[in-house]
Amino acid sequence: QPVHRIAVIPGDGIGKEVMPEALRVLQAVQQRFSVQLDLTPIAWASCDHFAAHGDMMPPDWKAQLQDQHALLFGAVGWPATVPDNVSLWGSLLKFRREFDQYINLRPVRLFEGVPCPLAGRKPGDIDYFIVRENTEGEYTKLGGIMFEGTEREVVIQESVFSRHGSDRVLKYAFELANSRPRKHLTVATKSNGIAISMPWWDGRADAMHAHYPAVAVDKQHIDILSARFVLQPGRFDVVVASNLFGDILSDLGPATTGTIGLAPSANLNPERTFPSLFEPVHGSAPDIYGQNIANPVAMIWSAALMLQFLGEQAAHDAILRAIEATLTGPRSEVTRDLGGSASTTVMGQAIAARV
Amino acid sequence: QPVHRIAVIPGDGIGKEVMPEALRVLQAVQQRFSVQLDLTPIAWASCDHFAAHGDMMPPDWKAQLQDQHALLFGAVGWPATVPDNVSLWGSLLKFRREFDQYINLRPVRLFEGVPCPLAGRKPGDIDYFIVRENTEGEYTKLGGIMFEGTEREVVIQESVFSRHGSDRVLKYAFELANSRPRKHLTVATKSNGIAISMPWWDGRADAMHAHYPAVAVDKQHIDILSARFVLQPGRFDVVVASNLFGDILSDLGPATTGTIGLAPSANLNPERTFPSLFEPVHGSAPDIYGQNIANPVAMIWSAALMLQFLGEQAAHDAILRAIEATLTGPRSEVTRDLGGSASTTVMGQAIAARV
Ligand SMILES: CC(C)[C@H](C(=O)O)[C@@H](O)C(=O)O
Ligand SMILES: CC(C)[C@H](C(=O)O)[C@@H](O)C(=O)O
Repeated sequence: QPVHRIAVIPGDGIGKEVMPEALRVLQAVQQRFSVQLDLTPIAWASCDHFAAHGDMMPPDWKAQLQDQHALLFGAVGWPATVPDNVSLWGSLLKFRREFDQYINLRPVRLFEGVPCPLAGRKPGDIDYFIVRENTEGEYTKLGGIMFEGTEREVVIQESVFSRHGSDRVLKYAFELANSRPRKHLTVATKSNGIAISMPWWDGRADAMHAHYPAVAVDKQHIDILSARFVLQPGRFDVVVASNLFGDILSDLGPATTGTIGLAPSANLNPERTFPSLFEPVHGSAPDIYGQNIANPVAMIWSAALMLQFLGEQAAHDAILRAIEATLTGPRSEVTRDLGGSASTTVMGQAIAARV
Repeated sequence: QPVHRIAVIPGDGIGKEVMPEALRVLQAVQQRFSVQLDLTPIAWASCDHFAAHGDMMPPDWKAQLQDQHALLFGAVGWPATVPDNVSLWGSLLKFRREFDQYINLRPVRLFEGVPCPLAGRKPGDIDYFIVRENTEGEYTKLGGIMFEGTEREVVIQESVFSRHGSDRVLKYAFELANSRPRKHLTVATKSNGIAISMPWWDGRADAMHAHYPAVAVDKQHIDILSARFVLQPGRFDVVVASNLFGDILSDLGPATTGTIGLAPSANLNPERTFPSLFEPVHGSAPDIYGQNIANPVAMIWSAALMLQFLGEQAAHDAILRAIEATLTGPRSEVTRDLGGSASTTVMGQAIAARV
C-alpha cells in the first residue's frame, strides 16, 4: 500500500479558506478507504511570506518539494501588497515551469442542482475537457521597453512556442479525445490575426492529426470559439489550447456551468519526474476573503483529481459522488453562489460527511 | 448638403449576401432623408480577386480608396482557397493599419424580441461598448521560426504596444465612459501572466485615469472578465481592450445577446485623415454561404454606424428603429438564428420597408 506524499499549500485569500475543507474531505477518505496520505503543510508561496521575507518562497523551495508526489494548492495573489505578476511568477508559474507540469487539464461540467446561467441547458449538455498548454506560449517575461518613460515608448512582448512544447500537449489532447466516445477535438487558434505562431500551431495540430485519424478535428479561432462556448456548448468534447487561450476558455467554460467556484484543475507532469499540482481555477478572490463564503467545491474536486492521478480511483469517485449529492441536497448545505446559505465550512462538512 | 463618398466592399462568403441588404436600406434612407451618398462598388479585397490575380487587392488600392469618406465592408475569408492569414493581412488588417483606424468600436446590446442565451436576462440588462485597439498589440507578423522543420523548432511571436497606440485608445475609452451616465470603464488586462506588456498597459491605464477622475475604473484579467460577460453582464458600461482581447470580447459579448449575426463594428480614424471602415463582427461564414440565410442586421447596423459617423444622426436613428421593429415583428421577417423563417433578402426588405 503506497504512501502518497503531498505538500499542502493554501497560499492567499480564499485559498486559506477552502483548503481546510479539502483536508477535511481527505481525512474522511482516509477513514473510509485504505488510502494513505503523508501531508506536509507549507505556509510559504504566499503574499504573507513575501511581506515577511521579500520573496514568495525560500531559496530551497525546489529541494523541499521535489520528493513530493503532488502539491495541493489553494490560490495565490494579494494585489494590495504584492503586484500579481510578482506573486504569480514567484510561485504558481514557477511550479508549472520548473516542475514541467505541461498539461493543465480542466474539466467543465454542468451538475444537477446547479442553476445554469445559459437558458434551457441541463446536465449532460455541457461536459467537456480543456487541455491547456501550461509552460510556454504567451506567458513569458521576454521582451522589453524602449524609450521608457517617454512619448516614444514602445513595448515588445514575446511569446515562445516550441515543437517540443506544442506537440506534447497536442498529443495528450488527441489521446484524450481518442479515448472518449465522441472522439472530437477542438483546436483553439487565431491564425488569421497572429501571423507567426498561430499558423505554425495549426500546422502542428495537422501533423499530430495524421497519427489519430479516428479523431474529428475542428479548428476554431478563439473569438468565435468563445462565442460558441455560450451558444453551442454541446459542440465540445475535448478542447486544446495555448497557455493564454486555455486560461481564458477555462474561466469562460466554468462560468457557463454556473460558477467558477466549482472548477478544478490538474497541472500534470505526466511522466511523474516532478510532482504534479492540483488547484481550483478560481483565484484568491480578495473581494470575498474573510467571510467564509467561498465555494469549496473547486478545491475539493481538485483534491479528488489528485487522488485519481495517484491511482486512487475509488476515492476520487467517492468524492465526486459526495459533491454531486451535496449539490442536489438541501440549500442549507450549499454556498451562496449556488443559491444556498451555507458557509464554506458547512459545505465542506456536508461533502466530507457524504464521503 | 454634403455628398458622402463610400466604397462598398462585399468581400467573400456571406459578405456578398448581406451587403445587398445594407445597400437596400441605404437606398431607403436616401429616399426618406436628404442624405446623399456616392457609392463605389469594389469587387477586390476578396478571395475571388486573389484567385484571379494572386493578390487580395490591386497595387494602387490605397490611391483608389483614400478619398473615400468611409468603407462599407462585408467580410473577408475563404480558407478553402486562401489561408486566412493571407486573405486578412492582405485586406482588412491592411485597411485598419494603413488607414490608421485605431479605434474599433463595438456596441453590445440585448434587443427586445431576441431570445437571450443567458437565463433570465432582459433588454436593458446587457448594454455596453467594447473599445478595441485596432492597429498594434498582439496582431503582428514579427518574430520567426528557428530550427525550422526539425525537432528543435522554436517560434517567437512578438506583440508590440506603443505609448502612442495605447494612450489614444485609452483616451477614447475614458472619453466615452465619461460621456455616459454610469461613467464606468472596465480595463481588460492579463498582467499576472503576460509579464512585460500587460503590467505596462495597466500603468498606462492608471496614468490616463488621472485625467478622468470622475470615471470609475475596474481592471480585470481577461479570464475572469470573460466569465463575467456571462455571469454579470450588467456590470459593464465601457470596456477597453488590446487588439486580441478586444477581438475575443467582441464575439463573446454579442454571443450573450443572442447571435453574433447582430453585432456591428466601426473601425474609426477619429481624425478623419483616412476613411473609416464599417463592418459586421461576423466573418464570411463559409459554412452557411450560398443559402441566403445569413442575418443581415450586423451589416445594416454597421451601415447605420457609418451614417452616424458621417453626421447623419437622424438616418442612423431611423435604421435602428427599423431594426428594433423588425426584431419584435413577425417571425416570417426574421432569419433562422432568431427563430424565424425569413431569408437574408426578406429580412433586409422588411428593415428597408420600415425605414
Ligand atoms: C477576421 C479577423 C482577422 C478579425 C480580427 O481578428 O480582427 C475579425 O475576427 C474581427 O473581429 O474583425
Ligand atoms: C493566476 C494566474 C496567473 C493563473 C493563470 O493565468 O494561469 C490563473 O488564472 C489560472 O488560470 O490558473
